[in-house]
Amino acid sequence: MYDCIIIGAGPAGMSAAIYAARKKLKTLLLTEEFGGQAAKSAEVDNYLGFTKISGAELVAKFHEHVDSIGVETKTATVESVTKQEKFFEVKTKEETFQVKVIIITSGKVPRPLNIPGEKEFLGKGISYCATCDGPLFNDKTVTVIGGGNSALDAAIELEKHASKVYILNINEDFQGDEIRKDHVKASKKIEILSQAQIISVGGDQVLENLKYKDLKSAETKDLAVDGIFVEIGWTPATKFVKDIKLNNLKEIEIDSVNKTSIDGIFAAGDVTNIKDKQVIIAAGEGAKAALSAWEYIITKK
Amino acid sequence: MYDCIIIGAGPAGMSAAIYAARKKLKTLLLTEEFGGQAAKSAEVDNYLGFTKISGAELVAKFHEHVDSIGVETKTATVESVTKQEKFFEVKTKEETFQVKVIIITSGKVPRPLNIPGEKEFLGKGISYCATCDGPLFNDKTVTVIGGGNSALDAAIELEKHASKVYILNINEDFQGDEIRKDHVKASKKIEILSQAQIISVGGDQVLENLKYKDLKSAETKDLAVDGIFVEIGWTPATKFVKDIKLNNLKEIEIDSVNKTSIDGIFAAGDVTNIKDKQVIIAAGEGAKAALSAWEYIITKK
Repeated sequence: MYDCIIIGAGPAGMSAAIYAARKKLKTLLLTEEFGGQAAKSAEVDNYLGFTKISGAELVAKFHEHVDSIGVETKTATVESVTKQEKFFEVKTKEETFQVKVIIITSGKVPRPLNIPGEKEFLGKGISYCATCDGPLFNDKTVTVIGGGNSALDAAIELEKHASKVYILNINEDFQGDEIRKDHVKASKKIEILSQAQIISVGGDQVLENLKYKDLKSAETKDLAVDGIFVEIGWTPATKFVKDIKLNNLKEIEIDSVNKTSIDGIFAAGDVTNIKDKQVIIAAGEGAKAALSAWEYIITKK
Repeated sequence: MYDCIIIGAGPAGMSAAIYAARKKLKTLLLTEEFGGQAAKSAEVDNYLGFTKISGAELVAKFHEHVDSIGVETKTATVESVTKQEKFFEVKTKEETFQVKVIIITSGKVPRPLNIPGEKEFLGKGISYCATCDGPLFNDKTVTVIGGGNSALDAAIELEKHASKVYILNINEDFQGDEIRKDHVKASKKIEILSQAQIISVGGDQVLENLKYKDLKSAETKDLAVDGIFVEIGWTPATKFVKDIKLNNLKEIEIDSVNKTSIDGIFAAGDVTNIKDKQVIIAAGEGAKAALSAWEYIITKK
């Protein structure tokens, strides 16, 4: 029986693994991949201690750190988590594990555009994070896809860097806060293309343009862009756990010490209702979750 | 007028500075020193991304990162923060600044003994940091004052350097972890004086001795010592701000997005009521506070 199983190895999961192992909990880290979204950032310059590092390099350092502590890790997709009388049962395709506490750090997956060229230009002009990658587009032309607060925030963030920011909104109006809408509408740098649906992206080595359908005229139009920021929503990865309390964004609700609604299950990082989704925040949250898990185990005896 | 003043440059303050500056807030970081408590750790092995690094080296990397972002910093002691109608006024001995939002990341300061001679011999035998000053007492006799984990850690650190280590504990037993207690009790260099209360310290140019009351016999006793390490707890550094809500540990109360009880003042790290005081957690909290401060500014207009 394990003391602690951590599901997901983004920054939250890796930080939790370090804390759990250093507290001498018998720990297993189950994950499909290492790094989560952090690995997908072209450049990270806001994780305290690392000046301008690629997401991939940063995640490699995290992984190295986890390995140096001697945490047991397995590459696997968790299919279910079930509460038994005195422990939990965690099932992957291949194996079943018994464990005292679980820390869910499975993150979110961006909802993709599902259009031709999207995969090809990921990290070559297509990004899912304006805060992470905005500064790479100084004096360039970028387009935000979406119409909610995240899209508006992305545009506000990007206007500081880019020379021109388009927002391609499939709807007629935005679904975000008035203050953000006002800001965006008043901006000289931002141009709103409403009732516009992206169709495809293209370029030679890097992204150069996109095609969209103007839903008002039904015409297909071209737009030259250096960057595209996809902000059409994210989905928390929670389908393996039933009956856990989620908020209206389907994020796992946690309290200030990372407890979920299920006794013995903790959560951290982007899969939770924590407001800002950032690498350094997730790493801090992972540490908190592991310390809470440890306290749960030592006070449970 | 600044957008944002950050008070204190431990991990929380430095992370906040990076986030605030990257959000293009006109930011000033006011601090007495860089690194906070983190700088005083002999070794840090739980900050995700850095495997076994000294506190001093880790803090140097943090500082380098802050400098690379171009944050304006000033070495100063903040004397007061006052809310005016539309901004805050922050006073140091030399200057007065006006600012829209404040992030307090001033951490904790060691609690003093408040006994005769303490101030006189500070730096002349009295220290609040065994990791920093331990090597100055090679083959000397030192005394640790305290009975918790920090006192035990200090004694374990000091036995590497000193020829003799006393621990003066006001209580009958220690309040630390079993593993630390066992180490201290088994050590041939460490001698435990329990139910012993320090009364005063003395010496000619440098510290030479201390007086303590043996609470068992009510006798006053003398002890010849070269160094005294004070480990009786830490106090949140909040005296420059009045009327802010504190908890019973005198920590600033924050909500899940780092708001304090004063509109426009945010806080992060060890100065707050966040449960676990850890470098990675403070860094995450600093980022959260800066993002909340940014949101406060953009939605206030």
